[in-house]
Amino acid sequence: MTTHPRPAGPSISAAALDLFRKVSTATLTTQMFKRGFRNVYVRRATRLTITATGNLVGPAFTMRYIPAREDLDHLGVFADPEHPQRKGVETVPPGSVLVADCRGEDGVASNGEILTTRLWKRGVAGFVSDGPVRDSHVIAKLPFPVYCAGGAPPLNLVRHHAVDLNIPIGCGGVPVYPGDIIVGDEEGVVVIPLERAEEVAVDAWEQEQLEAFVLERIRNGAALPGTYPPSDSTRAAYEEWRRKQ
Amino acid sequence: MTTHPRPAGPSISAAALDLFRKVSTATLTTQMFKRGFRNVYVRRATRLTITATGNLVGPAFTMRYIPAREDLDHLGVFADPEHPQRKGVETVPPGSVLVADCRGEDGVASNGEILTTRLWKRGVAGFVSDGPVRDSHVIAKLPFPVYCAGGAPPLNLVRHHAVDLNIPIGCGGVPVYPGDIIVGDEEGVVVIPLERAEEVAVDAWEQEQLEAFVLERIRNGAALPGTYPPSDSTRAAYEEWRRKQ
Amino acid sequence: MTTHPRPAGPSISAAALDLFRKVSTATLTTQMFKRGFRNVYVRRATRLTITATGNLVGPAFTMRYIPAREDLDHLGVFADPEHPQRKGVETVPPGSVLVADCRGEDGVASNGEILTTRLWKRGVAGFVSDGPVRDSHVIAKLPFPVYCAGGAPPLNLVRHHAVDLNIPIGCGGVPVYPGDIIVGDEEGVVVIPLERAEEVAVDAWEQEQLEAFVLERIRNGAALPGTYPPSDSTRAAYEEWRRKQ
Amino acid sequence: MTTHPRPAGPSISAAALDLFRKVSTATLTTQMFKRGFRNVYVRRATRLTITATGNLVGPAFTMRYIPAREDLDHLGVFADPEHPQRKGVETVPPGSVLVADCRGEDGVASNGEILTTRLWKRGVAGFVSDGPVRDSHVIAKLPFPVYCAGGAPPLNLVRHHAVDLNIPIGCGGVPVYPGDIIVGDEEGVVVIPLERAEEVAVDAWEQEQLEAFVLERIRNGAALPGTYPPSDSTRAAYEEWRRKQ
Amino acid sequence: MTTHPRPAGPSISAAALDLFRKVSTATLTTQMFKRGFRNVYVRRATRLTITATGNLVGPAFTMRYIPAREDLDHLGVFADPEHPQRKGVETVPPGSVLVADCRGEDGVASNGEILTTRLWKRGVAGFVSDGPVRDSHVIAKLPFPVYCAGGAPPLNLVRHHAVDLNIPIGCGGVPVYPGDIIVGDEEGVVVIPLERAEEVAVDAWEQEQLEAFVLERIRNGAALPGTYPPSDSTRAAYEEWRRKQ
Amino acid sequence: MTTHPRPAGPSISAAALDLFRKVSTATLTTQMFKRGFRNVYVRRATRLTITATGNLVGPAFTMRYIPAREDLDHLGVFADPEHPQRKGVETVPPGSVLVADCRGEDGVASNGEILTTRLWKRGVAGFVSDGPVRDSHVIAKLPFPVYCAGGAPPLNLVRHHAVDLNIPIGCGGVPVYPGDIIVGDEEGVVVIPLERAEEVAVDAWEQEQLEAFVLERIRNGAALPGTYPPSDSTRAAYEEWRRKQ
Repeated sequence: MTTHPRPAGPSISAAALDLFRKVSTATLTTQMFKRGFRNVYVRRATRLTITATGNLVGPAFTMRYIPAREDLDHLGVFADPEHPQRKGVETVPPGSVLVADCRGEDGVASNGEILTTRLWKRGVAGFVSDGPVRDSHVIAKLPFPVYCAGGAPPLNLVRHHAVDLNIPIGCGGVPVYPGDIIVGDEEGVVVIPLERAEEVAVDAWEQEQLEAFVLERIRNGAALPGTYPPSDSTRAAYEEWRRKQ
Repeated sequence: MTTHPRPAGPSISAAALDLFRKVSTATLTTQMFKRGFRNVYVRRATRLTITATGNLVGPAFTMRYIPAREDLDHLGVFADPEHPQRKGVETVPPGSVLVADCRGEDGVASNGEILTTRLWKRGVAGFVSDGPVRDSHVIAKLPFPVYCAGGAPPLNLVRHHAVDLNIPIGCGGVPVYPGDIIVGDEEGVVVIPLERAEEVAVDAWEQEQLEAFVLERIRNGAALPGTYPPSDSTRAAYEEWRRKQ
Repeated sequence: MTTHPRPAGPSISAAALDLFRKVSTATLTTQMFKRGFRNVYVRRATRLTITATGNLVGPAFTMRYIPAREDLDHLGVFADPEHPQRKGVETVPPGSVLVADCRGEDGVASNGEILTTRLWKRGVAGFVSDGPVRDSHVIAKLPFPVYCAGGAPPLNLVRHHAVDLNIPIGCGGVPVYPGDIIVGDEEGVVVIPLERAEEVAVDAWEQEQLEAFVLERIRNGAALPGTYPPSDSTRAAYEEWRRKQ
Repeated sequence: MTTHPRPAGPSISAAALDLFRKVSTATLTTQMFKRGFRNVYVRRATRLTITATGNLVGPAFTMRYIPAREDLDHLGVFADPEHPQRKGVETVPPGSVLVADCRGEDGVASNGEILTTRLWKRGVAGFVSDGPVRDSHVIAKLPFPVYCAGGAPPLNLVRHHAVDLNIPIGCGGVPVYPGDIIVGDEEGVVVIPLERAEEVAVDAWEQEQLEAFVLERIRNGAALPGTYPPSDSTRAAYEEWRRKQ
Repeated sequence: MTTHPRPAGPSISAAALDLFRKVSTATLTTQMFKRGFRNVYVRRATRLTITATGNLVGPAFTMRYIPAREDLDHLGVFADPEHPQRKGVETVPPGSVLVADCRGEDGVASNGEILTTRLWKRGVAGFVSDGPVRDSHVIAKLPFPVYCAGGAPPLNLVRHHAVDLNIPIGCGGVPVYPGDIIVGDEEGVVVIPLERAEEVAVDAWEQEQLEAFVLERIRNGAALPGTYPPSDSTRAAYEEWRRKQ
Repeated sequence: MTTHPRPAGPSISAAALDLFRKVSTATLTTQMFKRGFRNVYVRRATRLTITATGNLVGPAFTMRYIPAREDLDHLGVFADPEHPQRKGVETVPPGSVLVADCRGEDGVASNGEILTTRLWKRGVAGFVSDGPVRDSHVIAKLPFPVYCAGGAPPLNLVRHHAVDLNIPIGCGGVPVYPGDIIVGDEEGVVVIPLERAEEVAVDAWEQEQLEAFVLERIRNGAALPGTYPPSDSTRAAYEEWRRKQ
């Protein structure tokens, strides 16, 4: 019961991953809302890194923290290479996103400069946490996307016990299943269930084409009625415009 | 009972509006405090836009959200040009400030790029919300002042139902009556009741002249006692200084 | 009972203060954790000032606020040079850090431009508060380190009554005793009890030397096991490396 | 735009109201969940009255509060019989439930003994608020159901301005449209949109019959599998049992 | 500066204290509001004791907690009879109310059975805290009024350091100066500044006489207009009724 | 990695379990504090059941919830007897305590009447949750101890997805490992790590004997100094008293 293998079926194409790199998280929430999903936005995880541009995209690899226990969570634990926090950093696959469930705890860090550097060097896609990180001013300048609840100096052991890896978790109030597609832009992070990711990527891309056209009209002074949402004639004009591109 | 016409009397001069463009919200809270008003600062509405400089000043035009209901709040509603959110964007008078009551809800957006662009194009003075906006990184670069609770990708329909326009609301814990003067600077937004706005503008301006003089003295090494607040002799020196300017 | 003289014994050397200027608050929380202290990080006090670089370091001089009372807390109180807020600004020793207990109140300011300028001119080391300041956009550019809960225009009298100086307080959830060493870097502020400060400074410095070596290895592609924490051989290599420097 | 007439269509039968008197709010949330409604439970409104037994059932008549303004909200306002709070108490129809939007404000009362007594005497069905009431220990003993956030002595004017009546509001995070069916039991309050109320009442009643049968089996030692939810054979036994009653 | 002697002037008569025993905290907030005081109700301090009836009335004697420090706050500290928590319990004058500033900390106790029993035996009037107590189920049955944030088992040392006695504090968001009159009824606790207590007691009593008359009329079916607030004729009838009593 | 077998060693004697039935949670927090544990009290889990007397004592069997996902968490899931919530209720061993991690979510239930009845019938010792239950007024009268965050009608599927059983969790901010000893009294719930449970039970019992003696003296008018904590002579008197019993 404590292993949660995802049914072998769902996977995602490189083309879809590429589309996720081009669309905004705002657009993705609209596509998910259309499908009945209201809860896909990770609270408290804002983009820390300023040098990493473009979207963070990749499948989730999860790490779970529970509250620390004074006798178990001392500095000696890290000597064990099987310690879940350290093992997580070493085993998250390149291209995946390490997602940490910090229970929204805002006074201690879930990561620091050395581990983040290791994640970057291993080719991991990024790090997402609903808690802060430490060494945040240094991490902010790494070429590695980190989304978190800002910075806080205290080490994780003050309040956290890393307990297991790659099982379903909550992060920022959102369910995250291993393999779900994580997308982060300048505004935040959304979680797309793997089963729906392929179609969502395509429809989000389509939506953004239409909205680019709409925005151009609004910038040129068009009023909302008939333009947004588009009337039949606006939509026809869009199709025409699209064909030309 | 649901229309709240403000008695015809109060209005505000262009000169007073101009003074509001020059004083800080900090000064305005002091002037309001002198008059017995302790609650004029809008919580959770920080300045998002980085390119818009100078104060946001204008009369309030309000929009009210209540919690969404799953059967009423679907994407189809925007096809109706009478939908309050869309109608609000099209009918807020140029020069006014659209103020949205989001009940402090921090997980969904009350506005996005297309609507904000339309507000800008219509000559609206600015947008104030106690909730986030979406497309926040793009809106941050528009030449249009937006004050809000940061950015969040989800569309308003996830939690909000726009229900009516231009009736008294609460925003960030502050009462906002249609026509009240909204002033926003780099620090935040305050609401000045229209009835008091004329005199408050003048007295705030006077206060800032005196404080500029005081600050100069403090910068030159003066101690607080006798300088801030000014003793009679400091005040006399100020009057002298003022006369010379 | 209301004076809290610290036993004459503990003091701190200039050398230790200098080490505190070079280490991070993250490192300091680790050193304190080793000694059984879990609660040294001041919540809600982020660095406001952008031009002040380097660590804020100095002994704490405290100011305590209680909730305002409408009849006692009016603008007239500042005419009294014995008013604790004003007296605090004038009497905090140069080189010390003024630390304000704002009970986490986030809607009013605990300081503003004029008082902060006076602190700077008096040679005070910095200002730390678990509440906001007003005139925050101006203070942000002063060459004087301020850590606080961002900016809020309302004057302190709206909610605060400055009541006494230099007695033990809580700030951001942390106990602060007069004379404790305050250290602030880009990430935040920690409080080091004076009795432990000397040894903590030395050990923090040592820790950072080792971590610099570790980080270099991680940047060069080393895996965590054996490197962080360092195995005996890594530690030997470090000692070698250290000797060469 | 500020009047929100409900389309004339929907109404509710006396039989359905009677069913609502017999079912639990827990059951109603299940029926609403089946229909895609996740947000029907009013937060922070617990049953205060201990002598009123049975469910509170009736159509909603709403009252909206916004934050108080010091110059508008003084004791003199109640001399005006058109003051919305007083007018609301006098005009809510007998059999209806007065529902107050207090924005979750927990430090002031939205009602007191005299007004509550008047509501009771007028034959109003009950009072629901997401804020506290004053004189709570007396109101608790009235034969009139009150659901609220406990007791708090301060009068509403300290923080509230009653602003309008019988327009859509939020209460405890839930949308409440005038005429929606309010149901309160010992556990709390739910809001059933009028359009769905008839069918929900019937299905809730049906659900409770089945669960009574299931519960009897569980009490007699049956295991969950096959019993809850019922297998085909359990359901057949239930139909048999039902027929006999 | 750290002793806060109240000017010798204000005191309170036994007659006023007696009136405070007869009026409700709700009435007192109205009287204070009339005088410009909006913040007199202690948040988070509900009546725990079920056997103690009648109002708690007495002058405040204060105790202040700051956050615990791991090296200072161990079980050994209580061996010192000068420890402020223990000294406070032994020195609060009979007839006074011990008021503890717990910074709203809700996870540890500010008092327990043994100390509360000692307070009771010493003739202290009662205990008020904005934090919980431990042994709450036993204390609830003592003939000694306790107002607090419910029960929590952990001892105060887990998060609190008792630091000083009888200086101005905040409790539940309200300023409490030594000697202020504390009044608690079944609904909660209010703080009446000593300077205003005499007149507030008298006016509160008068208000309650009038409201008793009003309530009788409302119970007999009178409508609010003309009755509450009373018209001239209602007020005349009240004067008549009063004379007869 | 997702199974967390506790090392075979630790167990607990029937005698120790019996002592836990006689001591208070307050006493247990003191014993744990002595051993360096500050975080053993489960927040938000108050005793709901009024008919169940005496302490809840038993080893923890855990259930973990993550946020619901709209497509996965529908009413149909309960048809699967392997659904973790249902399987948990059927497999928690008699005598154990089912402990649910609800992430502090306060708007939905983690249990209801039918499942709680089944737990009771199966001989389970009790149920602990940091979220509410539904049917709370009925459950309150069952002869089965339930500790939770009060009552809330909505079913768990509205926000919860039961995901796994008997792995380490957090509950009310406290780490709970399967097999840890849960003790609940009228005040709340504490978690005693299995490894320390035997000695803690004995020492807690001893502490309560001494405190009974101390309390008797305090009730008879003794002052705190010398009595609490006991001086050598008080302790000698206690030993004498103890011998006689």
